[in-house]
Amino acid sequence: MINIVVIGAGNVGIHLCKAINKAKDLTLKQWYNRSKIHKIDSLKDVPFTNDITNLEKADIYIICVSDSAIENLSNDIQFKNRLVVHTSGSVPMRNLNKKNRRGVFYPLQSLSKGIEISFINVPICIEANDKKDRQILQMVATAIGSPKYFIQSDQRKILHLAAVFVNNFTNQLYRISHELTDNKNINFDILKPLIAETSKKVQKLSPYKSQTGPAKRGDKKTIKQHIKLLEDYPTYKKIYELLTHSIQKTHG
Amino acid sequence: MINIVVIGAGNVGIHLCKAINKAKDLTLKQWYNRSKIHKIDSLKDVPFTNDITNLEKADIYIICVSDSAIENLSNDIQFKNRLVVHTSGSVPMRNLNKKNRRGVFYPLQSLSKGIEISFINVPICIEANDKKDRQILQMVATAIGSPKYFIQSDQRKILHLAAVFVNNFTNQLYRISHELTDNKNINFDILKPLIAETSKKVQKLSPYKSQTGPAKRGDKKTIKQHIKLLEDYPTYKKIYELLTHSIQKTHG
Repeated sequence: MINIVVIGAGNVGIHLCKAINKAKDLTLKQWYNRSKIHKIDSLKDVPFTNDITNLEKADIYIICVSDSAIENLSNDIQFKNRLVVHTSGSVPMRNLNKKNRRGVFYPLQSLSKGIEISFINVPICIEANDKKDRQILQMVATAIGSPKYFIQSDQRKILHLAAVFVNNFTNQLYRISHELTDNKNINFDILKPLIAETSKKVQKLSPYKSQTGPAKRGDKKTIKQHIKLLEDYPTYKKIYELLTHSIQKTHG
Repeated sequence: MINIVVIGAGNVGIHLCKAINKAKDLTLKQWYNRSKIHKIDSLKDVPFTNDITNLEKADIYIICVSDSAIENLSNDIQFKNRLVVHTSGSVPMRNLNKKNRRGVFYPLQSLSKGIEISFINVPICIEANDKKDRQILQMVATAIGSPKYFIQSDQRKILHLAAVFVNNFTNQLYRISHELTDNKNINFDILKPLIAETSKKVQKLSPYKSQTGPAKRGDKKTIKQHIKLLEDYPTYKKIYELLTHSIQKTHG
């Protein structure tokens, strides 16, 4: 049995607490947050504290606070030589105070409040200097059902950047389409099967092989027509031109 | 029973032929292509012709050829006053020769050779001047199991443009992420659950509400770090900056 203390009650903290609490090989020993939290039914029996000097003894402490708060929080921890990990994509492991054994347990997924997710779909990127610590983190990932990968800090930064492209930027392309269709009284639902299929295709085929459309086949007439349609949307026109150029560079 | 002749044997032609051939209320009367086609098992009993002057009598003729070939092909058809439709997202209905009753039957989906798709996931955008013709096209869409929408030519152009954003451009963002991770020996598979979740989220929640990440929350430190990581990728850096700007404009 691995005993865990979770620090923080944002999206990642809540989702992790729920997953740990359900896993049969893990015990959620304690949950810390600097302020009181709204009660969550499935977590009502987990001991809670808002006193950082009052953390229980455990095998791992998982820090789930905002990037800018990680370093200070790891300084405020009073004990030494225990395994303390953070869950951020962009903060280096070395930002954690070195009085403890350091590690990273980064769930690469978009976790939203109120939207349940199975951890089968949440890959965990693991980092730790010590081999035994890596094994413990690996066991935690396995216990909550997650795929796991060993990722160094410099690789994790790139992964986080890549995640912005496939998640935030992709979502903004959806938003642009929503705006374009709304303005012509077209039901955005018409595009939803295409959105689903595009992401499904790339699960098996490389994005390079999946590409189709006017940019790839050099269909100048259609590209010109599209750019004309975007006359009233200067930013979207630039995005169209730049991504068309990028596709042509990739496939040219 | 509705009798149909399909004209063309590209992706759309093949997928449509298969769907029509399977639908119990439809008969695929004949299949035309200008050159001989590779035999497809499920379509081996469908009468084939490569002579445009030799088309059978039918209730609908569905033209599935490249955009630039539609107009000439509709001129080459010898009969009059029958229902002839094309399947293109960007060609206006009026480009069809007016000696026949004109219409559009545009499947808004990414159809690839060799990848089977259920037409439940292929919305059909229908256009026709005549009410009865619209009804016939609607019946065909229903028979193959597709959701159907009545869409005018000017709306269809916008839909096609929006489809480029959610399909081709999104796929290019996947490609960029693939390149970034590959160059650091990171397994692209780590990002696949996030890709799936991003497209899934937007099926129920608007893209506006789904947005998260450094651009939306104005996390300048992370944005700066990301831009620095893209120093060796000038086009991707521009895409990062432009899409970050676009998200901030949407949510600012």
